[in-house]
Formats: sequence, structure tokens, C-alpha cells
Amino acid sequence: MREEATAFVPGHITGFFSAHPDDDPTKAGSRGAGLTLTDGVEVTVEPADGAESTIVLDGEEIDIEPVDTVLETLEATARVEAESALPLGSGFGVSGGMALGTALAANHVFERKLSWNELVTIAHGAEVQAGTGLGDVVAQAAGGVPIRLEPGGPQVNKLDAIPARARVEYVSFGELSTADVLSGETDRLSAAGKEALSRVVEEPTLLSLMYASRLFAREAELLTDQVARTIGDVTDAGGQASMAMLGETVFALGTGLSDAGYDPSVCATHPAGAMLK
Amino acid sequence: MREEATAFVPGHITGFFSAHPDDDPTKAGSRGAGLTLTDGVEVTVEPADGAESTIVLDGEEIDIEPVDTVLETLEATARVEAESALPLGSGFGVSGGMALGTALAANHVFERKLSWNELVTIAHGAEVQAGTGLGDVVAQAAGGVPIRLEPGGPQVNKLDAIPARARVEYVSFGELSTADVLSGETDRLSAAGKEALSRVVEEPTLLSLMYASRLFAREAELLTDQVARTIGDVTDAGGQASMAMLGETVFALGTGLSDAGYDPSVCATHPAGAMLK
Repeated sequence: MREEATAFVPGHITGFFSAHPDDDPTKAGSRGAGLTLTDGVEVTVEPADGAESTIVLDGEEIDIEPVDTVLETLEATARVEAESALPLGSGFGVSGGMALGTALAANHVFERKLSWNELVTIAHGAEVQAGTGLGDVVAQAAGGVPIRLEPGGPQVNKLDAIPARARVEYVSFGELSTADVLSGETDRLSAAGKEALSRVVEEPTLLSLMYASRLFAREAELLTDQVARTIGDVTDAGGQASMAMLGETVFALGTGLSDAGYDPSVCATHPAGAMLK
Repeated sequence: MREEATAFVPGHITGFFSAHPDDDPTKAGSRGAGLTLTDGVEVTVEPADGAESTIVLDGEEIDIEPVDTVLETLEATARVEAESALPLGSGFGVSGGMALGTALAANHVFERKLSWNELVTIAHGAEVQAGTGLGDVVAQAAGGVPIRLEPGGPQVNKLDAIPARARVEYVSFGELSTADVLSGETDRLSAAGKEALSRVVEEPTLLSLMYASRLFAREAELLTDQVARTIGDVTDAGGQASMAMLGETVFALGTGLSDAGYDPSVCATHPAGAMLK
């Protein structure tokens, strides 16, 4: 057993998605596309002092179900300490990032000798089971600007990507519950998500992703007043913005939000997926 | 049309492989495993001044068939300027890296709007067609320590990876022609490659990869005297080394070659695949 290991997992903003439930959480998931971010989650795992695992995010002990599930699956009793540049529950894939970072780091510390795909499958399944996300983990494992063509973990899914990089700005006005949205009626949302995906597959560029994401947010009726107003402000200033799925969060390419007079957080697309440090 | 674009592609050392020919070069390829490297190829593409494409590697104009094929497929007449930290023809995937870097950068410069998978497929097919490699391009697109479970381009292949990072040392004693080895009898080689793959799939760790690679080099009868002697020296010094497929090159984990008294080049596994800069 090693003393500790640290993994970095990029954040992930989903631009649009369609939900694909399955009784097997490693096969369930979503289709869609989004941006992985240089702002992300750093997760350090070490063997626990006592008989119980503890999870700490930015200095505070919390309970994150997918992380518990990952630790149980790896038969690891650990102290998980995460630092995140991103707010939880606001559409940045923080819970997925913690699950995936925990899987990578715990595999190393406890010498479980699992493969990359096995670890991503465990984290993805844990996230789906908890209802906190459907596609963040596989996107965060891939990095870049991933397109999720087929849902599920890496044993069954199919990924492509937009071959581009960009500066990304974002502002977050508050939380939206992914679990609440996903437990409601998702037919309309998934129809809009499939249409958006066709558009991006036909033209895999960042501009087309932003356009498809805005259309999706409108058709799936997810826009809050604040988010709609902010996207409008960026458009008026000549920029490209949309809503992060799912959070009360607006993201923009380049200097979109700054140009519109906001004071955004600034990062960029992350060219790599999750990694041990 | 943009003025220019630059892509970085990590080097790739193949530890072992089995050859899988197919009439369709995007389906042909290899199974196997290897290490992508922080030492790699940086490729800058700009529109050509005249009516013909030119390719420059480390300041010298050369002809690299897969790069020509990529440019023709993208209908791009370009000046391709590459800088490589790695020697050509010595088992580091330089030709594959130049093909993939050219695809990524030319797509950007000439605004061809192709997806990541499409660009990797084009570079992979060009490399296979030229006989200069079978699995480097897809490994270099993925990054990390890729395991190629099923051959071919990204539309048909299946990848996994060893979730680990390491310092890597290497010494190169000269060239071996990939095309010569691949055009000979490959039955024995491919049988050894499949056995090595089973071993690494069963235990996806760096140590198991090194062990499988040494066994493969011996069983496929690829070892030169110089390479065998150097691997022996590293083993005697308590380290882990093997032969890069295909080059007269020895690579080692950590400080394996230094500890054995060699003066190696030093790099590390690259946590990300090819990327636009």
C-alpha cells in the first residue's frame, strides 16, 4: 500500500444532452457534448486512520454518494481530500470529478491493479446510480471538447470530439439539482438533445456547439430568467454564450462575458482527460 | 483560411504488438501496448506559397508519405514544418506523429470542420497505407499508456490504458525499418504479441508491460545484440528496460539506464494525447 496519491480531473460543462436510462448503471448515461476545463478537482487519497472513510471538499467534511460507492467498490477505507476551483451543484461535474479522481488515486494507493476503463466504469456507474450526473465522468476521462455519441461507460459508449481549444469564461448564479431535473419528465429534453447532437456531428466546431447548446436550453425549457438575460447580454456584445447543464451557470467562449460587462471566472478547455499527478 | 496552426503529438514507444492487416487501411492496424512520451513532434502548418506542399523536419526538407497522404485527403496545399525531440525510424512514432499533427493543424488552418475521430482516422489510414506504422497514431491520439485491445482507426478500434505515469529514459543505437519487418513473416511475431497482450490485460501495470515487452522481443526474435546487451545491463542494475518496436532503441522506467551507466535521453509518459497548441 502506498502512502497517498493525487489525481487531477478537469471540470466539465455539458452544452446539451439526452438521457438514456438503463437498469445497468454502467450502460446508462447520456449523449451530448461539452467542454472540459482547466479548472477542475484535485483529489488526494490516503488510507484512513480509522475504520471509516471520510471525504473532505475544500476543507469541509461532506458526504458525496458517488465517492462512497467508488471506495466501497475498490474495497478501500480512505481519507479523500479534494480541492475544487469550481462550485458544487452548478453544472461543472464536480461530483463526477471527485468520483473519478477517487477511483484513479485509490487504485494507485491500494494497488488494486485495475485498468483505466475499469476505473472510469466504476466512477461512471457510481455517478449514474446516485443520480448526480449521466455523462460528466466519461467526458472528464477523455478531456478536450468531447462529443458523446453513444451513452454509458467506456466498455459500451462511443466518443468523438471537436478538435479545438478555447479560452472559457463562466459566471455561476446558483445551484440547480441535476437529480430533480433528471427524475422529472425528460422526453422533451431528450428530443432537443438529439437534435442538438445531430447538428454538432454534422459540423463539429465550437461555434456549432454553442449554437446547439442555446437552442437546447430554450427547447428543453431549462433557462432561468437570470441565465437568459446573461446569455442575451453576451450576444448583444457580439459574443457566444450558453447555459451549463445543469446549473444556474452561463459560460462563454473567449472574452464573451467580460465584453458584456460581467466579472467572470476565466479558464480554458483542458486538452487532456483526468490524470494521476 | 487561418494563417497557421501548430499541433503537438507525443512520441510513442510500442512495447509489443500483433499485426492485423485489412484491405481497408482505416480498419487495419495492430493490437498492443506502449508508452506515449512528453518528447514528441511539434507540427506547424501554413498554406503553401506555391502550388506544391513541402515538408520540413528539423530544418531539412524531406518526403514523408503519410504526411503527403493526409494533405491530399484534406485537399490542403501546405508548408508543414515539424520539430522533433526524437529520432526518425527508431521506434518513437515520429512519422505517425507528423501525420496526426498535420491532420489536426491542417484541419484548423484550412477550416475543414472534420471531427477528432475523422482526423485520427485519416492519419492512421495514411500511416498504415505507407507501411510505416500500425498503431502509433491511435496511441498518440489517446496519450497516457494506451492498450490497443482491437486494431484500426477510432471508428472500429477498442482502447484501454494503464492508469499510471512514469519517468522514461531511452537510448537509440540506430534505425530498424518497420516496413521491412511488417512485410516479412509476421505469424510468430503476432502470436507473441497476443500472448503479451493477455498478460497486460490481466494485470494492467507498468511492470507487467515491461515484462511482456521483453518476452515479446525475445519470442519475436527482434532483439539485436546491442539491444539485448543493454537490456541485460539495466536488469543487472536492478531496473526495468525493454526494446522499442521497431527501432534499435532501449527504453527504461525511472532511472534504469542511468543506473546502468548509460547516458540516456530523459522524458516521461505524456498524460494527454495529441493537441492543438
